[in-house]
Amino acid sequence: MAADSRGRVAIVMGSQSDWPTMKCAAEVLEELEVEHEARIVSAHRTPDRMSAFAKGAEGEGFDVIIAGAGGAAHLPGMIAAMTHLPVLGVPVQSKALSGWDSLLSIVQMPGGVPVGTLAVGEAGAKNAGLMAASILALSDEDLSERLQDWRASRTADVGEAPVD
Amino acid sequence: MAADSRGRVAIVMGSQSDWPTMKCAAEVLEELEVEHEARIVSAHRTPDRMSAFAKGAEGEGFDVIIAGAGGAAHLPGMIAAMTHLPVLGVPVQSKALSGWDSLLSIVQMPGGVPVGTLAVGEAGAKNAGLMAASILALSDEDLSERLQDWRASRTADVGEAPVD
Amino acid sequence: MAADSRGRVAIVMGSQSDWPTMKCAAEVLEELEVEHEARIVSAHRTPDRMSAFAKGAEGEGFDVIIAGAGGAAHLPGMIAAMTHLPVLGVPVQSKALSGWDSLLSIVQMPGGVPVGTLAVGEAGAKNAGLMAASILALSDEDLSERLQDWRASRTADVGEAPVD
Amino acid sequence: MAADSRGRVAIVMGSQSDWPTMKCAAEVLEELEVEHEARIVSAHRTPDRMSAFAKGAEGEGFDVIIAGAGGAAHLPGMIAAMTHLPVLGVPVQSKALSGWDSLLSIVQMPGGVPVGTLAVGEAGAKNAGLMAASILALSDEDLSERLQDWRASRTADVGEAPVD
Amino acid sequence: MAADSRGRVAIVMGSQSDWPTMKCAAEVLEELEVEHEARIVSAHRTPDRMSAFAKGAEGEGFDVIIAGAGGAAHLPGMIAAMTHLPVLGVPVQSKALSGWDSLLSIVQMPGGVPVGTLAVGEAGAKNAGLMAASILALSDEDLSERLQDWRASRTADVGEAPVD
Amino acid sequence: MAADSRGRVAIVMGSQSDWPTMKCAAEVLEELEVEHEARIVSAHRTPDRMSAFAKGAEGEGFDVIIAGAGGAAHLPGMIAAMTHLPVLGVPVQSKALSGWDSLLSIVQMPGGVPVGTLAVGEAGAKNAGLMAASILALSDEDLSERLQDWRASRTADVGEAPVD
Amino acid sequence: MAADSRGRVAIVMGSQSDWPTMKCAAEVLEELEVEHEARIVSAHRTPDRMSAFAKGAEGEGFDVIIAGAGGAAHLPGMIAAMTHLPVLGVPVQSKALSGWDSLLSIVQMPGGVPVGTLAVGEAGAKNAGLMAASILALSDEDLSERLQDWRASRTADVGEAPVD
Amino acid sequence: MAADSRGRVAIVMGSQSDWPTMKCAAEVLEELEVEHEARIVSAHRTPDRMSAFAKGAEGEGFDVIIAGAGGAAHLPGMIAAMTHLPVLGVPVQSKALSGWDSLLSIVQMPGGVPVGTLAVGEAGAKNAGLMAASILALSDEDLSERLQDWRASRTADVGEAPVD
Repeated sequence: MAADSRGRVAIVMGSQSDWPTMKCAAEVLEELEVEHEARIVSAHRTPDRMSAFAKGAEGEGFDVIIAGAGGAAHLPGMIAAMTHLPVLGVPVQSKALSGWDSLLSIVQMPGGVPVGTLAVGEAGAKNAGLMAASILALSDEDLSERLQDWRASRTADVGEAPVD
Repeated sequence: MAADSRGRVAIVMGSQSDWPTMKCAAEVLEELEVEHEARIVSAHRTPDRMSAFAKGAEGEGFDVIIAGAGGAAHLPGMIAAMTHLPVLGVPVQSKALSGWDSLLSIVQMPGGVPVGTLAVGEAGAKNAGLMAASILALSDEDLSERLQDWRASRTADVGEAPVD
Repeated sequence: MAADSRGRVAIVMGSQSDWPTMKCAAEVLEELEVEHEARIVSAHRTPDRMSAFAKGAEGEGFDVIIAGAGGAAHLPGMIAAMTHLPVLGVPVQSKALSGWDSLLSIVQMPGGVPVGTLAVGEAGAKNAGLMAASILALSDEDLSERLQDWRASRTADVGEAPVD
Repeated sequence: MAADSRGRVAIVMGSQSDWPTMKCAAEVLEELEVEHEARIVSAHRTPDRMSAFAKGAEGEGFDVIIAGAGGAAHLPGMIAAMTHLPVLGVPVQSKALSGWDSLLSIVQMPGGVPVGTLAVGEAGAKNAGLMAASILALSDEDLSERLQDWRASRTADVGEAPVD
Repeated sequence: MAADSRGRVAIVMGSQSDWPTMKCAAEVLEELEVEHEARIVSAHRTPDRMSAFAKGAEGEGFDVIIAGAGGAAHLPGMIAAMTHLPVLGVPVQSKALSGWDSLLSIVQMPGGVPVGTLAVGEAGAKNAGLMAASILALSDEDLSERLQDWRASRTADVGEAPVD
Repeated sequence: MAADSRGRVAIVMGSQSDWPTMKCAAEVLEELEVEHEARIVSAHRTPDRMSAFAKGAEGEGFDVIIAGAGGAAHLPGMIAAMTHLPVLGVPVQSKALSGWDSLLSIVQMPGGVPVGTLAVGEAGAKNAGLMAASILALSDEDLSERLQDWRASRTADVGEAPVD
Repeated sequence: MAADSRGRVAIVMGSQSDWPTMKCAAEVLEELEVEHEARIVSAHRTPDRMSAFAKGAEGEGFDVIIAGAGGAAHLPGMIAAMTHLPVLGVPVQSKALSGWDSLLSIVQMPGGVPVGTLAVGEAGAKNAGLMAASILALSDEDLSERLQDWRASRTADVGEAPVD
Repeated sequence: MAADSRGRVAIVMGSQSDWPTMKCAAEVLEELEVEHEARIVSAHRTPDRMSAFAKGAEGEGFDVIIAGAGGAAHLPGMIAAMTHLPVLGVPVQSKALSGWDSLLSIVQMPGGVPVGTLAVGEAGAKNAGLMAASILALSDEDLSERLQDWRASRTADVGEAPVD
């Protein structure tokens, strides 16, 4: 693969309805100027597309995969089963069980197939973006600086006293 | 497919360690004289074998698939994504979270991809066997009678008073 | 029973208030052209009607029973206790406990009396309809084709990229 | 029914395996000299025996029914659906889910069909016996005195300081 | 106590905010023509009033006490500790934890001090009223008939088919 | 009250069976040379002794009350309802529900009646002792020093590397 | 430190969004005329400010620290790790998991580092204020009287009967 | 920092008692020939050592940090607050609450401070090791090959049929 195609992050999700959550990952990658691409890849409705994606992700030049899903959320774990790239999982808040199902079916992976799981919902998606950036920053000093600036600006934004 | 190869039940599980639970499905199918076959098919360690199995199950003459898994249990749902045969899911009791993770990651499937889920653990495995039999019995009068006899004998076995 | 009365699905529920959930089962059976009939049969308010229904379901020409209930949801399990037909259970989302009660009181059946349980709420009802169809499709090639078409169209409907 | 047959308590349970829990109800009724009788009546394996029992309980001279069950515990609620006698429910501790399933499937009854639910396990069974006694004591002054004595002796038994 | 003062039900609750739930108990007792009285008795804000109430309840002519509370709900159990009358507990739905806290702190009473617990929320309050009536009906044939009529009318009200 | 009688901590618990947990509070108070006294005071079996204790605690010279209980754990909250002294609650691990019931029925107190709740089990009891000491240390410089020494020694005890 | 700077309560929280909850602590301290100060101190975004605050709190004249946070709520425990002052924790209700995460990550502290935890949400914040007052009242007789008056007025406010 | 000091993984944990879990991370890194170092760094008992470690980790040549803790598990999140290196969190199974507390207090981090969380217990520790390796493998082709070999050997080890 070409060097210039590296450092990209794939953001995949099971359905269009996950996008309002998952775009928080895209937004923070945007801010950090990390190349990324969002796709709908359903473990349950398009299992072959999922396999093709997972197996081809490295070849496409992706370095990190962020996968979000809700309910019996199999997408992150199944992708992790088919690639040795690092996979980050975002439990999307579900309707009846409020994300407990999403969380457990992403985080409780058996030994051998890791998914680095973030919090339920938008905070988790944003953090998946940040974690992807921190991984890429290990071999990209410019990104490392942008990431540290981003973090510093957040610290600076914290007020001293609450405002009514 | 040959008529005589129909009516078979596949019992699949993620690992050898699920067998003490899943053999309860095999035992009841044995009692009911339903042809069945148990295989280890791991969603996470052997995803390609799983795909091949799920897509080929009908061609192999299977009519019903019983899939058991624990933790972030993706096997039943992923098989259901790749076959239109009825899939029954058995949540295997997990160590730390005692099967809550297994249960939610099997039962909370999104609309479009059903897994008929049974109870956590051995009772669930046994019931998966019985439910498979009840499905096959719809077009097999002899099996229907054996199933009704099996149920009747269980009723007859219930004592009237508890014994110290 | 007459051959032409077979292949029917009963959709039963504890109360009128379960219908907004359970009609998702009816709708998908409609799409798949599977004959079905919805009835209100309350385990708690009309136990005798429930017994009569469960015991007579096969004689009425039903092959599969879908039962939905919420809270201490006893309808699916009690019907399963009185028929050897396959019974599918749909946990209806409850008010205070959001369906945790419905789910556990349907899925945790003891060994001997299976209920194939689907997800909490509308996705579960839809999937109960699909699973009933997959069971009937085992001996109905036309239905099998319609079911495979239905599944294929869902796959085709999945977009490639999320839309804002 | 004869006056002298009143004041009796039925203790019913789904299976012999519930007896180690449920005998705590029998023991406290024994201590309080309340006539009682224990029977195995399974909602799932012997639904007709259960119906017959529930409908005939008043005629048999029972005033209060204590019903214990585990897992998807339907016995207390189904009996309550078929008698206007007071029904007390005891959630028996289950294996995988430790009684959460038993508790929710007994206590979360819909409006119209009450089950007075006690704690999970032996404490709950003992308390079901005590509550049955407190109900009968409303019209039995001797029992009321025995019950008050029993309670007073428990108070007296509480030591002042813990002993290593 | 005077015979004519018996057969009354006390409905107590921790705060005015519990009344929208607890009035469901009052309403069904009204329908069944059971004398009842509702009071605010807070375990935490008015512990002495609570003690006085619990100890004096029998003397006031109450036969059954219905107590509702939410969160760390101590009212039902504390009253049960100070009277040998039957106590029924209603877990009021709480804000953050949706009644899980209310349910567990009412139902999990230690051996020796029973509280017959009903479902979380309005259904539980209604059922507490019904259960109180079923207890009183044991020695009041007219009430027993009214209760049976009430139950029969509910059965009759159940429609056959759901209506869109 | 006499100055020399101040600075004492009461450790109360519902039953002898709570002592193996609660003695962890006594032990750490012993180490810190804080005067303390352990008593069995049951909210449910000895409600009058509990009231007397709670109302008289200040007069007895207690400054802080540590209360432990399991299941539907009402002791800490009821004591807090009857004293304005600070009350610390220790949820004792329960059998079936493993302390979830104890935790929720202690911590979820309504606004107006605080219980400072510690962790479930022995760690919680130990921390209740430490927190009582930290409260007393506010007006006892010697104790403050002993507490800081105790904490420093714990820091010093932490090894650098794990040992197999 | 100067005597007149003692008796102050710090109210710290992780972010501005916690203020609507945490101001309930400020309000009750206001009513009780306890000096207090609210600050935003984020464990995760401003860890150094948090360390400086925790280590300097005693020097600033604070006697009690109230810390509120939601989700993976580390603020109360981390402050408790760096001061020997009593720390009270308030679990702020979180979005997806409704405060279960906040509660467990505050209350389940290991032996050695206590956080006195209050209920989830506004009631917990109010109670943290009250508990801080009860701690300070141990060495401030005027405050003790104000606190007792506050409590008495609450008791007096409880009506006798619910109002529709 | 020197190039040859890069590619190292730090494994930190709150106490010696976490080592039986966390050594599963060390073992898999050993197998994959990834340089790593295990240290005890307690958020609660040695907060300064933790800060020093987190802030100095990059300077020490660490690229990835694996942090394990149980109960109110603050170590992973606090380290993540003080470094921009990727942090992986391992929830150690706790005694009373079986790891639910550990899991929630690690995974539910607020937006801005990510912790990639693995499963509760040994499987999670092993997967943290694997995920660290997958991160390092992005810029280390030899490691990438060793990792792919390791994964392939696991696939090859899966038997076809379960063995009694």
